[in-house]
Amino acid sequence: MVEGTRPDASYWCEYAWLGGDRATPGVRVDVAAGTIAAITTQTERDQVGSAAVHVAGLTIPGLANCHSHAFHRALRGRTQGERGTFWTWRNQMYAVAERLDPDTYFTLARAVYREMVCAGFTVVGEFHYVHHQPDGAPYQDPNAMGRSLTAAAEEAGIRITLLDTCYLAAGIDSAPEGVQVRFSDGDATSWAGRISALVPNANTRIGAAIHSVRAVPPDQLGAVTEWAASTQAPLHVHVSEQRAENQACMAAYGRSPVQLLDEAGAIGSRTSVVHATHLSQDDVDVVGKRSAYACFCPTTERDLGDGAGPSRALHQAGARLTVGSDSHAVIDPFEEMRAVEMDERLHSEERGHWSAAELLTAASGTGHESLGWPDAGRIEVGAPADLVTVDLRSVRTAGTGDGLESLVFAATAADVVHVVSGGHVVDVAPEARMRVARDLASAIAPLWKAP
Amino acid sequence: MVEGTRPDASYWCEYAWLGGDRATPGVRVDVAAGTIAAITTQTERDQVGSAAVHVAGLTIPGLANCHSHAFHRALRGRTQGERGTFWTWRNQMYAVAERLDPDTYFTLARAVYREMVCAGFTVVGEFHYVHHQPDGAPYQDPNAMGRSLTAAAEEAGIRITLLDTCYLAAGIDSAPEGVQVRFSDGDATSWAGRISALVPNANTRIGAAIHSVRAVPPDQLGAVTEWAASTQAPLHVHVSEQRAENQACMAAYGRSPVQLLDEAGAIGSRTSVVHATHLSQDDVDVVGKRSAYACFCPTTERDLGDGAGPSRALHQAGARLTVGSDSHAVIDPFEEMRAVEMDERLHSEERGHWSAAELLTAASGTGHESLGWPDAGRIEVGAPADLVTVDLRSVRTAGTGDGLESLVFAATAADVVHVVSGGHVVDVAPEARMRVARDLASAIAPLWKAP
Repeated sequence: MVEGTRPDASYWCEYAWLGGDRATPGVRVDVAAGTIAAITTQTERDQVGSAAVHVAGLTIPGLANCHSHAFHRALRGRTQGERGTFWTWRNQMYAVAERLDPDTYFTLARAVYREMVCAGFTVVGEFHYVHHQPDGAPYQDPNAMGRSLTAAAEEAGIRITLLDTCYLAAGIDSAPEGVQVRFSDGDATSWAGRISALVPNANTRIGAAIHSVRAVPPDQLGAVTEWAASTQAPLHVHVSEQRAENQACMAAYGRSPVQLLDEAGAIGSRTSVVHATHLSQDDVDVVGKRSAYACFCPTTERDLGDGAGPSRALHQAGARLTVGSDSHAVIDPFEEMRAVEMDERLHSEERGHWSAAELLTAASGTGHESLGWPDAGRIEVGAPADLVTVDLRSVRTAGTGDGLESLVFAATAADVVHVVSGGHVVDVAPEARMRVARDLASAIAPLWKAP
Repeated sequence: MVEGTRPDASYWCEYAWLGGDRATPGVRVDVAAGTIAAITTQTERDQVGSAAVHVAGLTIPGLANCHSHAFHRALRGRTQGERGTFWTWRNQMYAVAERLDPDTYFTLARAVYREMVCAGFTVVGEFHYVHHQPDGAPYQDPNAMGRSLTAAAEEAGIRITLLDTCYLAAGIDSAPEGVQVRFSDGDATSWAGRISALVPNANTRIGAAIHSVRAVPPDQLGAVTEWAASTQAPLHVHVSEQRAENQACMAAYGRSPVQLLDEAGAIGSRTSVVHATHLSQDDVDVVGKRSAYACFCPTTERDLGDGAGPSRALHQAGARLTVGSDSHAVIDPFEEMRAVEMDERLHSEERGHWSAAELLTAASGTGHESLGWPDAGRIEVGAPADLVTVDLRSVRTAGTGDGLESLVFAATAADVVHVVSGGHVVDVAPEARMRVARDLASAIAPLWKAP
């Protein structure tokens, strides 16, 4: 997918978003060694000469997919059969998780990450918990599965933060069951020992994740939090996705998931609370006071019947919004961004909560920060050259004006026409998308064959 | 857009949906004079020889867009600026309505209808209320605007039911204001007189619409209902889209919009209640008992902050679901279908309300019935040859299985790769879509110039 290294190149963007509420017309971006070296505004196309690649449309920073379970892509469509209850979904998800190995997961994840790049994502936060062999024994390399994911991302041309996930229990006071033995390291200290062998590189960061208060007992939270603090790594955690989680947590511990995590020091300015669907006002205040990230995954939260969380209330309390495509029922950052606003509208019966610029900031700069890439996700000198261009003249975007609203409220992933990821041009033309689709189909089919 | 007449042709469909819960592989459809003449299942591609056009993907009947205000397409994206309140939307909508004339509306509607065909719609119910000149005087042909719409549909290759709308008041006990003088015929008898000059043809049906209980006083409802009964025409009406409408109706008349309409005989088996968002259980029971259609427009209902109506409760009470893209914030039947289910999931926090087959039936056969085309919207001998093929091997649909769930829960309008509308092949290839986009842009731009 990475076609030709272009460490030095110049792009003339018809419009570019350089921050703020508006797109700027006529922006030249010079790239050197994969980094933005210069930005020139008020340029006419003629001025920039033939050396610059002309990019028609609105160019934005590469977007951040802050919550991914790559293998869930194998479930798309299939979990809707016979009306698809939550248990249809969960049984199928576990069936796929049972069959993955480092090779098949590499092949699947590479195709999924390529789909993401075609949609405009140039970094992914992979919330990774399928660590071990089917019987629970570590692979020869105990990080074989994680390394498959980071290698897949590199081949796909997307940066990755591997959010290696601590997952120790089937539920409060119950041992891992069935396929869950693949997820568990036994205790958080063993988890920390394993992941300490993972090293970051130019394409990869290592972060930590607590699966949930269900899967990590309170006495194990400290070891995860300490590992993340010692490495200044991002720490992600599923929080209050469904009411049952809150009820179980309250019954066992007499406090909400947010309260429990906060008391363990797990909610801070490097933390992303993922979903944050069913929060009390006290929970909202805690997440806000800690300046944590709130990662919303609205297309998944619709699909699973989770509900719609208080995105705007979290923002007002001080939390920072990011977005993710999670189960990959949909991979489309534009759909994800606008769904945050649409869910608020459905709930409040009022329009006008999030502006297009705020949603775009969530999906770009804030998202990158939450994954440990604070320099990325913005078109600025010194930032990685991640440039995503959206067609303003498709059947969807034509006539919608040339503003950020066109992009956030009218475009889809199909409108992404040009992608530069870390200075590399990634081919997202129709023929390349067809190749990605073939790779997806051939990676997914074997996972559904009877064993 | 209609490229080459093919009154006689044969298609070999890789998969086709012939009703029921599953797609059938290897289906030959023979078309004569725009009608399906024969259907042969269990065919291999080789058997059918070179005379049949090979259509890869899943072929379904053409879909019905049961609620359209074509000119609202000019608002897409733009009404989101500065967070876009309801009044942003309404002020902009009225500004565009002021500027339309029969020529500009023809050009705009033709482009919008072409966008619909590219998305898989082969019939549109146009809820049309911009009837008169800017000062309220009739055009020389009092149906000039309506004829622009029916002509636009014919050129775009989409069948149309012109739901000519009675609109008499700004609100309960208040005369039309501003641009609303373009909408009003003075009284329902004059409305009926005007539309009696409209005649159906092979591409066009004429239906009636009551704008709402706000815009048509109770003593005028009878004349509209009688006209529809005398012609056995579809009768559509906006019902309980927002709570304010219910409150105003209750305050003025001591009953809900559904009750008021029902007492006037306006709710029956040819009636579509559009939106039906804020209904009491009594209202649901009435709509169900009358076997009326309930037309949901979820992408618009999200956008405007209307809320999500009780689609499944209406179904259980006996009402028949249809869908529409209404304000055209989105034109995508797949998004519309799945949004009905997703809204139920968000509300109930449970998956599994509507099956894919039910949603597809709503958007095809039931939708066509509600618009007065009972023979269309199904792949059956004798039905109009409306065949829409969806790519099962795109980045979105790859790996999702070959079932109806792939189409309803994974596809988008961008996956429509082949359209036959009334026996005509309509070009929906990427280059054709680019032409449609150019037509949209050039039709919309002048509507936003300062007058």
